[in-house]
Amino acid sequence: MFIHKKELQFHAKPEKPDPVFAKKLQEILGGQYGEMSVAMQYMFQGWNTRGNEKYKDLILDTGAEEIGHVEMIATMIARLLDKAPVQEQEAAAKDPAVEAIMGDMNPHHAIVSGLGAMPENSVGVPWSAGYVVASGNLLADFRANLNAESQGRLQVARLYEMTDDPGVKEMLSFLLARDTMHQNQWLAAIKELEEVEGVIAPSSVPKEWEATEFSHQLINFSEGNDSEKMSWIGQEAPDGIGTFDMLASHLHTRKNRY
Amino acid sequence: MFIHKKELQFHAKPEKPDPVFAKKLQEILGGQYGEMSVAMQYMFQGWNTRGNEKYKDLILDTGAEEIGHVEMIATMIARLLDKAPVQEQEAAAKDPAVEAIMGDMNPHHAIVSGLGAMPENSVGVPWSAGYVVASGNLLADFRANLNAESQGRLQVARLYEMTDDPGVKEMLSFLLARDTMHQNQWLAAIKELEEVEGVIAPSSVPKEWEATEFSHQLINFSEGNDSEKMSWIGQEAPDGIGTFDMLASHLHTRKNRY
Amino acid sequence: MFIHKKELQFHAKPEKPDPVFAKKLQEILGGQYGEMSVAMQYMFQGWNTRGNEKYKDLILDTGAEEIGHVEMIATMIARLLDKAPVQEQEAAAKDPAVEAIMGDMNPHHAIVSGLGAMPENSVGVPWSAGYVVASGNLLADFRANLNAESQGRLQVARLYEMTDDPGVKEMLSFLLARDTMHQNQWLAAIKELEEVEGVIAPSSVPKEWEATEFSHQLINFSEGNDSEKMSWIGQEAPDGIGTFDMLASHLHTRKNRY
Amino acid sequence: MFIHKKELQFHAKPEKPDPVFAKKLQEILGGQYGEMSVAMQYMFQGWNTRGNEKYKDLILDTGAEEIGHVEMIATMIARLLDKAPVQEQEAAAKDPAVEAIMGDMNPHHAIVSGLGAMPENSVGVPWSAGYVVASGNLLADFRANLNAESQGRLQVARLYEMTDDPGVKEMLSFLLARDTMHQNQWLAAIKELEEVEGVIAPSSVPKEWEATEFSHQLINFSEGNDSEKMSWIGQEAPDGIGTFDMLASHLHTRKNRY
Amino acid sequence: MFIHKKELQFHAKPEKPDPVFAKKLQEILGGQYGEMSVAMQYMFQGWNTRGNEKYKDLILDTGAEEIGHVEMIATMIARLLDKAPVQEQEAAAKDPAVEAIMGDMNPHHAIVSGLGAMPENSVGVPWSAGYVVASGNLLADFRANLNAESQGRLQVARLYEMTDDPGVKEMLSFLLARDTMHQNQWLAAIKELEEVEGVIAPSSVPKEWEATEFSHQLINFSEGNDSEKMSWIGQEAPDGIGTFDMLASHLHTRKNRY
Amino acid sequence: MFIHKKELQFHAKPEKPDPVFAKKLQEILGGQYGEMSVAMQYMFQGWNTRGNEKYKDLILDTGAEEIGHVEMIATMIARLLDKAPVQEQEAAAKDPAVEAIMGDMNPHHAIVSGLGAMPENSVGVPWSAGYVVASGNLLADFRANLNAESQGRLQVARLYEMTDDPGVKEMLSFLLARDTMHQNQWLAAIKELEEVEGVIAPSSVPKEWEATEFSHQLINFSEGNDSEKMSWIGQEAPDGIGTFDMLASHLHTRKNRY
Repeated sequence: MFIHKKELQFHAKPEKPDPVFAKKLQEILGGQYGEMSVAMQYMFQGWNTRGNEKYKDLILDTGAEEIGHVEMIATMIARLLDKAPVQEQEAAAKDPAVEAIMGDMNPHHAIVSGLGAMPENSVGVPWSAGYVVASGNLLADFRANLNAESQGRLQVARLYEMTDDPGVKEMLSFLLARDTMHQNQWLAAIKELEEVEGVIAPSSVPKEWEATEFSHQLINFSEGNDSEKMSWIGQEAPDGIGTFDMLASHLHTRKNRY
Repeated sequence: MFIHKKELQFHAKPEKPDPVFAKKLQEILGGQYGEMSVAMQYMFQGWNTRGNEKYKDLILDTGAEEIGHVEMIATMIARLLDKAPVQEQEAAAKDPAVEAIMGDMNPHHAIVSGLGAMPENSVGVPWSAGYVVASGNLLADFRANLNAESQGRLQVARLYEMTDDPGVKEMLSFLLARDTMHQNQWLAAIKELEEVEGVIAPSSVPKEWEATEFSHQLINFSEGNDSEKMSWIGQEAPDGIGTFDMLASHLHTRKNRY
Repeated sequence: MFIHKKELQFHAKPEKPDPVFAKKLQEILGGQYGEMSVAMQYMFQGWNTRGNEKYKDLILDTGAEEIGHVEMIATMIARLLDKAPVQEQEAAAKDPAVEAIMGDMNPHHAIVSGLGAMPENSVGVPWSAGYVVASGNLLADFRANLNAESQGRLQVARLYEMTDDPGVKEMLSFLLARDTMHQNQWLAAIKELEEVEGVIAPSSVPKEWEATEFSHQLINFSEGNDSEKMSWIGQEAPDGIGTFDMLASHLHTRKNRY
Repeated sequence: MFIHKKELQFHAKPEKPDPVFAKKLQEILGGQYGEMSVAMQYMFQGWNTRGNEKYKDLILDTGAEEIGHVEMIATMIARLLDKAPVQEQEAAAKDPAVEAIMGDMNPHHAIVSGLGAMPENSVGVPWSAGYVVASGNLLADFRANLNAESQGRLQVARLYEMTDDPGVKEMLSFLLARDTMHQNQWLAAIKELEEVEGVIAPSSVPKEWEATEFSHQLINFSEGNDSEKMSWIGQEAPDGIGTFDMLASHLHTRKNRY
Repeated sequence: MFIHKKELQFHAKPEKPDPVFAKKLQEILGGQYGEMSVAMQYMFQGWNTRGNEKYKDLILDTGAEEIGHVEMIATMIARLLDKAPVQEQEAAAKDPAVEAIMGDMNPHHAIVSGLGAMPENSVGVPWSAGYVVASGNLLADFRANLNAESQGRLQVARLYEMTDDPGVKEMLSFLLARDTMHQNQWLAAIKELEEVEGVIAPSSVPKEWEATEFSHQLINFSEGNDSEKMSWIGQEAPDGIGTFDMLASHLHTRKNRY
Repeated sequence: MFIHKKELQFHAKPEKPDPVFAKKLQEILGGQYGEMSVAMQYMFQGWNTRGNEKYKDLILDTGAEEIGHVEMIATMIARLLDKAPVQEQEAAAKDPAVEAIMGDMNPHHAIVSGLGAMPENSVGVPWSAGYVVASGNLLADFRANLNAESQGRLQVARLYEMTDDPGVKEMLSFLLARDTMHQNQWLAAIKELEEVEGVIAPSSVPKEWEATEFSHQLINFSEGNDSEKMSWIGQEAPDGIGTFDMLASHLHTRKNRY
C-alpha cells in the first residue's frame, strides 16, 4: 500500500517560466532513464522478489522515493510552463523571441496537458514499460539498477549545464546527490551478492550446460589486431575461473553432431 | 563497413521441428535483451565513441559478433519451424497434439514470415530501438552492457531448461559461454575505468554542482526499520568519499530560497 | 512524497497455481485500463491541477490507492505462477495437461520475469503512457476517469467469470467494489462541476468561436432513416441551449470566404 | 460499405501557408484524441454492437462523419504546408524568419510526406490503435465517447487560441460545434441507458460477486483530512444503493481464508 | 466525406464459432499488411495528392473499398467469437478441448472487446500508423501499394489453408480476388508512370546530384563470388542508362575533399 | 557471421557543425525507410530464404552494405553534432542564433547520446522492427525492397535540397547512387521472377481458391464517373488472364450459402 504525503521531497522553484527547458526536463521524467522508469522498475523488482525480505524492502523503499521524484519533476515542469505565451497575439506574433519560444515548446504542453507535465520524454514519445527490467535475479537486476542510476545521473548533469535558473539547478543538484547515493547503494549490494554468488550472472547455471572453451576468449571480428591492445588479455578473468584469451581468427565454428 | 561470411559462428541443428520452442526462442532474438538489442547497442556505442580507439574497436568487434548471433538464432528458429503443421487437414484437425502445436505457435510464423524468424520477441512485440543504450559515457555504457549480458545469459539459461532437444541445447551452451565471456570482458573494462575515474558515473560532475549532504543517505520510505538491516550502513560507501548514513525519517525536505 | 506500507490493501491467496490465469490477470495490471493506467492517470492529473486543492487531494488519494492495487495484482500474479511447470522434464513432456499449461502461459513469465508479474497486458504488450489522460480540465478528465473505472470494472467482471479459484474471486470482488466506489465518486464530482460549468466541456469557449448552427444537428451519414429513431430528436439537448435537430441530407457543407 | 463523396464536409482555406501551425494541427488528426481515434473507435464499437440496431446506426453514422473530419484536417494541413520554404537557399539561409520556420516544422512534412499530412500527432508519434475503446458494453463505451469528445473539443479550443488565420479559425469553429453536438448526443444516450441499467457499469454484475462493504467508502490515502471536504460525503451515492462513507484510516485490509 | 451503406461488400457467415481462427484473422485486419493499413494508406495518399485528380480518385475509391473490407473482417471475427466458451464452468474445466480453445484465444477477445474484433494483429499488438506509406510521390507510393497488396494476398492465402470452414473460405476467396485486382491495378498504373518518368524513383533528381559511377555496380560484401551468378550482370540495367557492373572488391571507398 | 572493416564505405566530412541538420539526417538512419530498416529487412529476408541460394547471397550482400550505410550516416551525424553549443552560457544566452540552434536540435542529441547518433527518426521516435518486411515469398519481398529503395531515395533527394554543406551533399550523392543501383537490382530480380511465376503474388494460389469474377473489376466507391478515366479500363490486365472491367455500381454483394 502507498500513502501520499502532501509535501515534495525537495522544494525548488524556478526563477522564471521557461517552457523550452520544461520540454527538456521531460527526458528525466518520462524518458528511457527517467524517474518513471526507475520508479516502476523498483516496484516490479520488489513485488517479484521472493524470500529475500531485506533486499525487497530496500528496493521498494527506493521505488517509493522515485515516485516522489516523478512528483518533484512534474511539479517543476508545471512551474516552468506557468504563464507560457501559448496564445497567438498581435504583439507576440511580431516578437521573434516569443515566437521562438512557442516554436520550441513541446506542443503537447500547449495543446494536450494545459501547461502541465506529460508522461513522455523530451521529444514527446510516451513512456513505455518496455524500459523496465525486473528479472527475478537480484544480481542481474542490481546491475540494471546501477546502469539506470548511472545513465540518469549523466542526463541530470547534462541538463544542469543547459540552464542558468538557480531554482532548477538546485533541484538538479539534489537529484545528482540521490543518483550518487543510489549508485553507491547498488554497488554495495552488488558487492555483497558477488562475494556469495560469483560475478557471472546467473550463478545457478551448472558447469556442464556451458561450452566453457568459449567463456574466456576475445574473438577478433575485424581486420587488424587492435583488440589485442586490451591490457587484460592474458590475465585472469574476473570470474576467477579462466584466463583471458585472444582468438586471432574469427573462424572458430564447430559443427555439432545433430 | 561490414562483410558477410557465409558460415554460422557456431553450427547446431535441432533434432526435430518444434514450432512452440521457436516462438520462445524469439525472446533472445528480438526481445528487450535479445541479440538484436546488444548488436545495435554495441554498434551505436562504437560509432559514438570519440577519442578512445582501443575501446571503440572492442565495442564494434563485439557488436559484429552479436549480429552473427542474431543470424544463428534466426537460422535455428527457421529450422525449428521447418515442416510445422500449419495447414488444416482432416487428420490434423482430429489430432489434439497437432491442434495444440498450431494453437501455441506464434501466428506470425505461420501467416507473416512463412516459417521464418521474425524481428520480435516471444509474444510477438516488434523489437524497438527504445531498448538501446548509447550515452557517450563509457563507464555508464559498460554498466549497461554488463547488465545486458547478465539479463541475456539468464534468459538463455531459462530456455536451456525448457527444451530437451540436444541440438538446441548445444547452441544455447555456446551462447551461455559467450555471455560469460562478455560479462568477463565488461567487468574487466569497468574495473579499468573505475580505477581512473572513480565509481560514480559520470565522473565529470564538479563537486559544487551536487547537494552532497544527500549523497550517502539511505532514506526510509516505509514504515518500520527493516532498511537498517543493510550490512553496509555505517560503513564507507563505494565512492570512498562518505559513509553510508541512515535517515530515520523520510522528512528531509529542504526549502530553497527561490 | 509517497510512503510504502508493508501490507497489501486486501489480502487474498489463490488456492492453487494457475499460470494461464496469471497471463489473463495481466490485462487489469498493465492493459489499456489496467491499474497502472489509472494510477498514472490520477498522479498526472493531480500534479497538474492548479488552484483546486480539494479535488487535487481527492485525485492523488485515489492515485495512491491505485498503486496499491497494482501491488495487489502483481502479488497475485506471482502467486499464481509459483511452482508453474516451466521446465521440460521427461514426465511433463508426456503429460498433455502440463504441456498445455506451458503452451498457454505468457512466455515472458517463464523466460523474462522469473515467474513474476510483468508491466504488460494479457497478450504481452508493454504498458504505454499513451493510455494516460491528464488535460488540465477537471470536467473532461473526470469523464476520462469515469470511463476508465467503467472499462476497468467490466474487465474485472469478465475475469471473475473466467476463474473458479475462490481466492482469486475474493480479490476480484474487492476490485469490483472499489471500481463501483470510484464510479460513484467521479459521478458525484462530475455532477458538482456540471452544475457550475454546464455540461459541454470545456466551458470556457466563447460563444462567438463556435459555429453554433451545427451544435445540435444529428447528421445522417448513411442510407435510410434509422438515425431518426433516436427518442431524443426534437427534444432539448443536454446543454440546455438548443433542440436536437435532424439533418436529412449529409450535404451541409459551407464554403468559407478565404 | 463506405462510399466517398468528393466534397469536404466543411470548406475552409487558410489565408497563407503556416507550416508551424500545420505541425500543431496534427494533434487533432493523429493524436490520442484526434479524429483518427474517434473515427476508428466508433467504427469498432459499431461493428461489435450486437442486437441494438438503433445505437449501432448512430455509432456508425458518427464514425463515418469522423472519417470526413480526418479528411478535412488532412486537407487543411496540406494547404498550410503549400509552398513551405523547405529548400535551403542562399537567401533563406540568411533570413532568420525562414530559418525559424524550417526549424519548427515537423521534419516529416518536409522529408517524408512531401508537404502532406502524416498519420501522427503534433510531436510526430504515429497514431496507435491502443487509443481505441470498444468494449461491447454500450454504457461504458458511451462514457469513453463523451470523454473523447470532451478532450477533443478542449484541444480544438486551445488550437483556436493559437492562430490568427481566419480560414483556420473557421474550420475550428465548425469542429467546436460538432464536438458540442457529439457531447450532447452521447450525454442523451448515456441518460437513456442509465435510466434502464443504473449508473454503475456494467449493470450485469450479480450483487453477490461484489464485496459491497467497500462500494461507497472514500478511503484516505494521505496525511491530513482534506478528503473530508467533499460536499457529497454522508450523502446518497449516485448508484442510489448506499451512502458515501469516509474511512479515516487506510488500514482496512481483510485477510481471506485461503 | 464518407457515407456508410448498411450492407457488407460481400456476405459470408462461418459455419460454426472458431475463436482460435478469429485470433488469426486479426492479422489481416490490424497487422502490418492488414486492411486497416491499406485503408489508411490509400486515404493519406489520396488526400496528399496534388494536381493529379485522376489518380487521386482511384486511390480514394480503393481506400473507401478497403474500409469496407475492415468492416467485413471485423464482422467475421465477431461471428467466429459468438458463443465462444469464455466462462469457466464445471463441465468446461474438465473438457480438454474447451480448455484448449480458451487457452489459444486472444485474451483480448474475452476480456477487452466482449467477443468483438480488436484493432490489432494476430498476436495482439495494436495497429500502428507507422505502417502507412504516403510520400507525395506517386511512383514510389504505387510501389508501396503493389507491395502491400502482394503481402496481403500472401497472408490471405496462408489463412485460407488454415481453415476448413466453407463460409470463412468464401470470404477469403473474395479477398484473394480483390487483392489480385489491386495488384493488377497498381501494376497498370506503375507502367503508365514509368513510361513517362523512367523507372528510378523519384525521377526529379538532377543528374549532377548523383555519384553516378556507383549507380550500376553490384558490390560484393561477402566472401566468394556467388553474387556473380546473377544473370543480369553485364546487361543493361532497367533504368536504360548503364550496364550492371560487378565490383570484385568491396573496397571502393573514396575520400572526399572536405 | 559478420566482420567489421575499420573503414567507412564512403568518406565524407561536413564543412561545419550543423546540429539542426543532424536531427533531420536521423530520418534516413532510423526512420520508416532509414538504413536500419533496409539493413534489418535484408538480413531477415536472407536468413529466411530457403533453397534459393543465389538470391540469398544477393540479399545478404545488400544487407551487409546497408549496415555500412547506417555506420556512414551515424558517423556523419556525430560529426555534425561536434562542438554543438549545448551548454547555456552567458554569451550564448544572448545570441539568438545560438539559442535557435539549441531549440531546434533533437534534445536527445544533447541529453541522451552525448552528441552522437540515436537509433531513431527525425522526430525522435525509436526505430521499430514493425517496419521490416520478410515474408518468405521472394516476389512479394522484392517488391517491398523496390518500394523501400524508392522511398529511401526520395528522402535522400529531399535532404539534399535542404543543405548547402558540400561534404554532406557528397555523402548524399553517394547514397542516391546506391539507391539507384538497388532499385535497378530489385527491378531486374523482379522481372526474372515474374517471367517464371507471373505477376500476381503469390503465384502458388490454386485458381479454385479465388472468386475470379472479382479479379479484374474496378469498382466505383464514390459518386461520379471519374474512375472511368483510367486509360487501361477495357484493356488486358497485367496478369494476362482477364480484361479490366468497370463496375458502375458498388452494389456487388453476394450472399453465400452458409
